[in-house]
Amino acid sequence: MEISRRGAQVPASPIRRLVPYAEAAKKGGATVYHTNIGQPDLPTPDGFWAALSVYPSRVLAYGHSAGSAEFREGLAGYYRRCGYDVAAEDVTVTTGGSEAILFAMLATCDPGDEVLVFEPFYTNYHSFALSAGVFLVPVTCRAEDGYHLPPPQEIEVRVGPRTRAILACSPNNPTGTVLSRAEMESLAGLCRRRRLFFLSDEVYREFVYGEKHTGVLELGLGHQAVMLDSISKRFSACGARIGCAVTKNPALQKAFLHLGQARLSPPTLEQAAALPLLELGPDYYGRIQKEYRARRDVVVDALERIPGVVCRRPAGAFYVMARLPVANAEDFAIWLLQSFRLRGATVMVAPGDGFYATPGRGKDEIRIAYVLEKSALARAMECLAEGLAAYGGVPSR
Amino acid sequence: MEISRRGAQVPASPIRRLVPYAEAAKKGGATVYHTNIGQPDLPTPDGFWAALSVYPSRVLAYGHSAGSAEFREGLAGYYRRCGYDVAAEDVTVTTGGSEAILFAMLATCDPGDEVLVFEPFYTNYHSFALSAGVFLVPVTCRAEDGYHLPPPQEIEVRVGPRTRAILACSPNNPTGTVLSRAEMESLAGLCRRRRLFFLSDEVYREFVYGEKHTGVLELGLGHQAVMLDSISKRFSACGARIGCAVTKNPALQKAFLHLGQARLSPPTLEQAAALPLLELGPDYYGRIQKEYRARRDVVVDALERIPGVVCRRPAGAFYVMARLPVANAEDFAIWLLQSFRLRGATVMVAPGDGFYATPGRGKDEIRIAYVLEKSALARAMECLAEGLAAYGGVPSR
Repeated sequence: MEISRRGAQVPASPIRRLVPYAEAAKKGGATVYHTNIGQPDLPTPDGFWAALSVYPSRVLAYGHSAGSAEFREGLAGYYRRCGYDVAAEDVTVTTGGSEAILFAMLATCDPGDEVLVFEPFYTNYHSFALSAGVFLVPVTCRAEDGYHLPPPQEIEVRVGPRTRAILACSPNNPTGTVLSRAEMESLAGLCRRRRLFFLSDEVYREFVYGEKHTGVLELGLGHQAVMLDSISKRFSACGARIGCAVTKNPALQKAFLHLGQARLSPPTLEQAAALPLLELGPDYYGRIQKEYRARRDVVVDALERIPGVVCRRPAGAFYVMARLPVANAEDFAIWLLQSFRLRGATVMVAPGDGFYATPGRGKDEIRIAYVLEKSALARAMECLAEGLAAYGGVPSR
Repeated sequence: MEISRRGAQVPASPIRRLVPYAEAAKKGGATVYHTNIGQPDLPTPDGFWAALSVYPSRVLAYGHSAGSAEFREGLAGYYRRCGYDVAAEDVTVTTGGSEAILFAMLATCDPGDEVLVFEPFYTNYHSFALSAGVFLVPVTCRAEDGYHLPPPQEIEVRVGPRTRAILACSPNNPTGTVLSRAEMESLAGLCRRRRLFFLSDEVYREFVYGEKHTGVLELGLGHQAVMLDSISKRFSACGARIGCAVTKNPALQKAFLHLGQARLSPPTLEQAAALPLLELGPDYYGRIQKEYRARRDVVVDALERIPGVVCRRPAGAFYVMARLPVANAEDFAIWLLQSFRLRGATVMVAPGDGFYATPGRGKDEIRIAYVLEKSALARAMECLAEGLAAYGGVPSR
């Protein structure tokens, strides 16, 4: 009894596929520093828990398929304070940013259509594309360029007759790179010339350290622009499963609504609980930026001191990609969990190849999420450095 | 800038597409009895709210992609008490029963494959099939047969080279029909002969009034059986977005896990909150069965008294399909909301055609969800009866 080809092809998440090794290490008594997953350790702001505790109904009912009116209005208000012209009806609340990505692919592409992505990219784009029957066409960004975009002609040459959209993520997961205004405008220009949708994953919009985030809604793209967002990282509320898709395109809004009606509603409680968080302002964002910036520096300072490691200091999100002096970063990551201990501890990292679509790329790279407090990150980087030394430094090329 | 064909084709939910008319009626001061949507009015059991209030972490983190270990074990325990051999690893927790249906289609079918469904069927199967690039092949069940299955040969003749699965729902939404053991065994036999997966939507398993529910896991189908379930109706917790897919097939389990990893995790809080509800036993289920059975009788007794209405007394779920003496039930449903008032009130029903895949079918049918208290249902049925009389009783055929 064979399952479907795509069912067999959906990849294990590179962020999570080593979890059994980590669980075994912990069973064996080891401390494991989890830098593999972008799960912030900061508390979800008090306002969330306070609103949750006074949820007014004893019937946990379906909400509106596009999200509650109050929450959509709250999100629109947040985006207006960001300087964007967004009304509540432009916002579709989704079950996490994940569903926003899937809905955007379904509503812009038919099976067999193509979406341009910049590798390394958020690994789960793979699985959503496979679910939607869409092909991802990768344009490679290089570690040496700080994972910024390649020259425009290298991008445009990948646009074909079935290309329907560009999917970009800035600040970037997994690289931390923040696209400049010029880069974003160049992509918008390409979308105008070749009539493509610009699907812009801006989940890390508030996580910028010194540089300025440029959003897709600033580029005058009108009906071609779709912003994909999530409250997961911003409010340390990953388990809430609340995201959104924002567009001025009425046909896309309608498609999102109908796709939303099929799954009835996003979680009800979390919309009510997260509503007050939408009022958080510069004080809150400044505080988390300061914390993550300091963490980034702990990690990147440590990486720069490890012989043979290549990495740039990224300007946003809470990730850094690094090239290691090993032939196979996944083997090394497994070895760290299975065989390496520094004072009873080890570190878990995400192997890099899962963030690429081009076969063979990223095999000597890893992604580190700096979502632990600074002292834990320092110890984690110590494990990485000592681990690399102990592993023998097999040259990667 | 055209959106995708499927994006434009995803249908508006027939359960929800008349919502703007209902909102307008309410703005105009009318009371609207909502029998259009299967949103139970009973309170979510106290145990849910109690567990929610003592959620132990201040960081709302991602959970396991297949659901928390405790919740999966809790579900497995519930199914074992139902008499099924289910282990925690057979259970994938999904974001509502909706996601379980989508995952099951993705993991059993490639784009262009076919799934047999029995119409009228749960309308959102349409949208999930469209998302997954799967074709639904309808086998029609008739009001006169109480929407039971047609003879086996009428079913088997619809199985073709691309048919991968049968998707059945018992107790049924929208008809309330409970398939007999003989019917379920006949479908299992067909799955064996033609090597099909049996995807069994058992969301209403506890809502049976006199007859016995037969589950797909009782039929000895092994790796061909997938049960799809949800806590939404059972615990009046529709807004929680917690469901599951249960199978003994390791390849399907793996595909579900990987699809689950792509969207990271189902909602975290609601799994913790719903955990104690899995221990509820015959006392709880007996009480809700008694309540819904009484409600069904209020609705069906009233329908039977309306001239020209055809309906059977269904044995399960909380729905009844009825054929009305009108040419177009949707026009009538809109008219009820726009133009008809009985002592300041009217009733909202779901037009029947959205529950069919065969064009033209169901145009004179409606679905009524008996999810209001008995006195409200009695008034709703009064509105329907008086509305039909006032509408003029245009003969439907």
